[in-house]
Amino acid sequence: MIFLTRHEHFNAAHKLYNPKWSEEKNSEVFGKCANANWHGHNYELIVTIKGEVNADTGFLMDAKLLSKILQEKVCDVIDHKNLNMDVGFMKDKLASTENLAIGIWNQITPHLPTNVKLHCVKLYETPSICVEYFGE
Amino acid sequence: MIFLTRHEHFNAAHKLYNPKWSEEKNSEVFGKCANANWHGHNYELIVTIKGEVNADTGFLMDAKLLSKILQEKVCDVIDHKNLNMDVGFMKDKLASTENLAIGIWNQITPHLPTNVKLHCVKLYETPSICVEYFGE
Amino acid sequence: MIFLTRHEHFNAAHKLYNPKWSEEKNSEVFGKCANANWHGHNYELIVTIKGEVNADTGFLMDAKLLSKILQEKVCDVIDHKNLNMDVGFMKDKLASTENLAIGIWNQITPHLPTNVKLHCVKLYETPSICVEYFGE
Amino acid sequence: MIFLTRHEHFNAAHKLYNPKWSEEKNSEVFGKCANANWHGHNYELIVTIKGEVNADTGFLMDAKLLSKILQEKVCDVIDHKNLNMDVGFMKDKLASTENLAIGIWNQITPHLPTNVKLHCVKLYETPSICVEYFGE
Amino acid sequence: MIFLTRHEHFNAAHKLYNPKWSEEKNSEVFGKCANANWHGHNYELIVTIKGEVNADTGFLMDAKLLSKILQEKVCDVIDHKNLNMDVGFMKDKLASTENLAIGIWNQITPHLPTNVKLHCVKLYETPSICVEYFGE
Amino acid sequence: MIFLTRHEHFNAAHKLYNPKWSEEKNSEVFGKCANANWHGHNYELIVTIKGEVNADTGFLMDAKLLSKILQEKVCDVIDHKNLNMDVGFMKDKLASTENLAIGIWNQITPHLPTNVKLHCVKLYETPSICVEYFGE
Repeated sequence: MIFLTRHEHFNAAHKLYNPKWSEEKNSEVFGKCANANWHGHNYELIVTIKGEVNADTGFLMDAKLLSKILQEKVCDVIDHKNLNMDVGFMKDKLASTENLAIGIWNQITPHLPTNVKLHCVKLYETPSICVEYFGE
Repeated sequence: MIFLTRHEHFNAAHKLYNPKWSEEKNSEVFGKCANANWHGHNYELIVTIKGEVNADTGFLMDAKLLSKILQEKVCDVIDHKNLNMDVGFMKDKLASTENLAIGIWNQITPHLPTNVKLHCVKLYETPSICVEYFGE
Repeated sequence: MIFLTRHEHFNAAHKLYNPKWSEEKNSEVFGKCANANWHGHNYELIVTIKGEVNADTGFLMDAKLLSKILQEKVCDVIDHKNLNMDVGFMKDKLASTENLAIGIWNQITPHLPTNVKLHCVKLYETPSICVEYFGE
Repeated sequence: MIFLTRHEHFNAAHKLYNPKWSEEKNSEVFGKCANANWHGHNYELIVTIKGEVNADTGFLMDAKLLSKILQEKVCDVIDHKNLNMDVGFMKDKLASTENLAIGIWNQITPHLPTNVKLHCVKLYETPSICVEYFGE
Repeated sequence: MIFLTRHEHFNAAHKLYNPKWSEEKNSEVFGKCANANWHGHNYELIVTIKGEVNADTGFLMDAKLLSKILQEKVCDVIDHKNLNMDVGFMKDKLASTENLAIGIWNQITPHLPTNVKLHCVKLYETPSICVEYFGE
Repeated sequence: MIFLTRHEHFNAAHKLYNPKWSEEKNSEVFGKCANANWHGHNYELIVTIKGEVNADTGFLMDAKLLSKILQEKVCDVIDHKNLNMDVGFMKDKLASTENLAIGIWNQITPHLPTNVKLHCVKLYETPSICVEYFGE
């Protein structure tokens, strides 16, 4: 069993806002993250897959192919977008890093080759805050 | 002459959009940076001042005091904000990294002690793109 | 189950020194880390908690609140201090990164909300050396 | 149980090339990584060991001793070398990051003290691609 | 006057070898960098241009366009190549970081728009060694 | 003219303390940096030299030789030491980053080959604070 990790980058606007709550409660819970006119981040996406090394290639999976999947299924959908307004797989979800990591897991997992399993989606929102999701 | 540099961080939403142009021209010139619903970044701000070392303190300037000025005059004004909508000193300016670096220079310079001079405002918009402004 | 990680920084002086040993034995075992007049480090503290996402906030826990706990219970106690002389929770312990990581675990764990569990304390002493403690 | 990690660096030339395949198939599978005249990388090696803290030293293991083992058994053998041509433990293996991480595991594990166990060999080939091997 | 910087990455094999010298002298001068079977690096290329901000775009130059020039004129020519054997603009030159930085300057400068000037080519060969060239 | 830069690391304890002042004034001016029992840092030293490329080697100067000078004249003297008590070239000086950068300049400059000139000593005290000295 070997683990292969690929880093990708995207940026997006978002706000933290629960539509069931008043403005005041949103401000109280989310502070400046609830700013009505949005704020944004450079996100660093770190995806780890696992499986057996292929004897003919020496690869678990070609990292360039993994990158292509992450670009098409995640970055092309999110990059330079508004997480609350523009991203189908985040619709009706709070745009937290936790929910975004889970959403990205669900975007990636159907598109991986059958010989590998998705192990971890790690997502940095800022250089000081990250979330990891292992699928359960 | 010695140079002292302090790093600070903030994040913000913005879009690149010239109001004198049509939607089409904005899209053509700015690409996905013109996304109507905004996108955003973690900015890294790197400010350098210069002057003589004070013989009693060994300091050009207390780096904690420099940090306090940057927090109050820049980060508190920009952090978790929309550069196009929420930031007074960017009003009526295109929200490019170039213009933001110049705007930050103008925010800081009146508040520095008289024995130091502002040397450079360096601003990373992403880990791969930065701008430097030396005040002229 | 989701994992949330927060990075904090502090710096401190220390020496590696076993008071049951002679100067010679301390020098032999700890080398220049036993320097009688101390040396020091910028430590990077990386704390991971785990639990379920709250449906109303999208958060495992507000990262700002986690940061506040780390500041009050760890950084305010250690930062700009001497680990051997000034830090109550390191009293009578060898000031190694291993013991410091375990001590930080014990400082944090009583103060976390009941819905989250401390998963890992990771502590970089230099950019090339780190320790991880998982509580058992 | 505590985990101690040490970072080391080396650089090397390699190509991805399966000698059982034609030039065309190698190019098709490995792309520019199959360049006949080689390419190369700065590798970052991150090795984690685990075990109990020694009460007399506060150490799992002296990080300087771990570094010495990594230098002698890995870096001195690989650094500034050609992975396909110059490195005994990679002979007759495809010079992928996956196989290199496994080879490094096998180089290190016989030389560790009996009170520690090798936990993970993590190997960055570029800042965006890494492999982890846990020995099984 | 404003300065805009763009980071790009490539990797390559090379050796340091003066064909006018004996094997022995090459080994003596260049040490393990003269390894006959090559070694290699991940290079980080950091290019800075300067000029006036365009009032209509807020840009010195579109950073995506600068990136496109660097990709086409530098990375596509060097990436995953052997600097001594495969790269036209390094032919008959010692493959040092100094000469590579100067060669990259000459590759880029004819392709920049007339309103900007190339200011600096900075090239990291390893995370600890870099060269800067300012064109004179 | 080409510029070559080399990064080195060391760590040390220090305190900021002016012996001409009372405890109270030291505390007031230097805050927690005046802690009587010391604190410490991992310093990152970044030294840039300049000159002409040698046609036979392609080098401004062998970066390994530059590193050897920095190790012998700076790191061996400062690393794992107390800047206020153990370091000859800092005797009777306030142990600020500014004074340390100037002291390092004076340590290095007599030992460089005659064909290169010292251009800059850049010294990070923390990842957020650095000083640059250009020798005048």
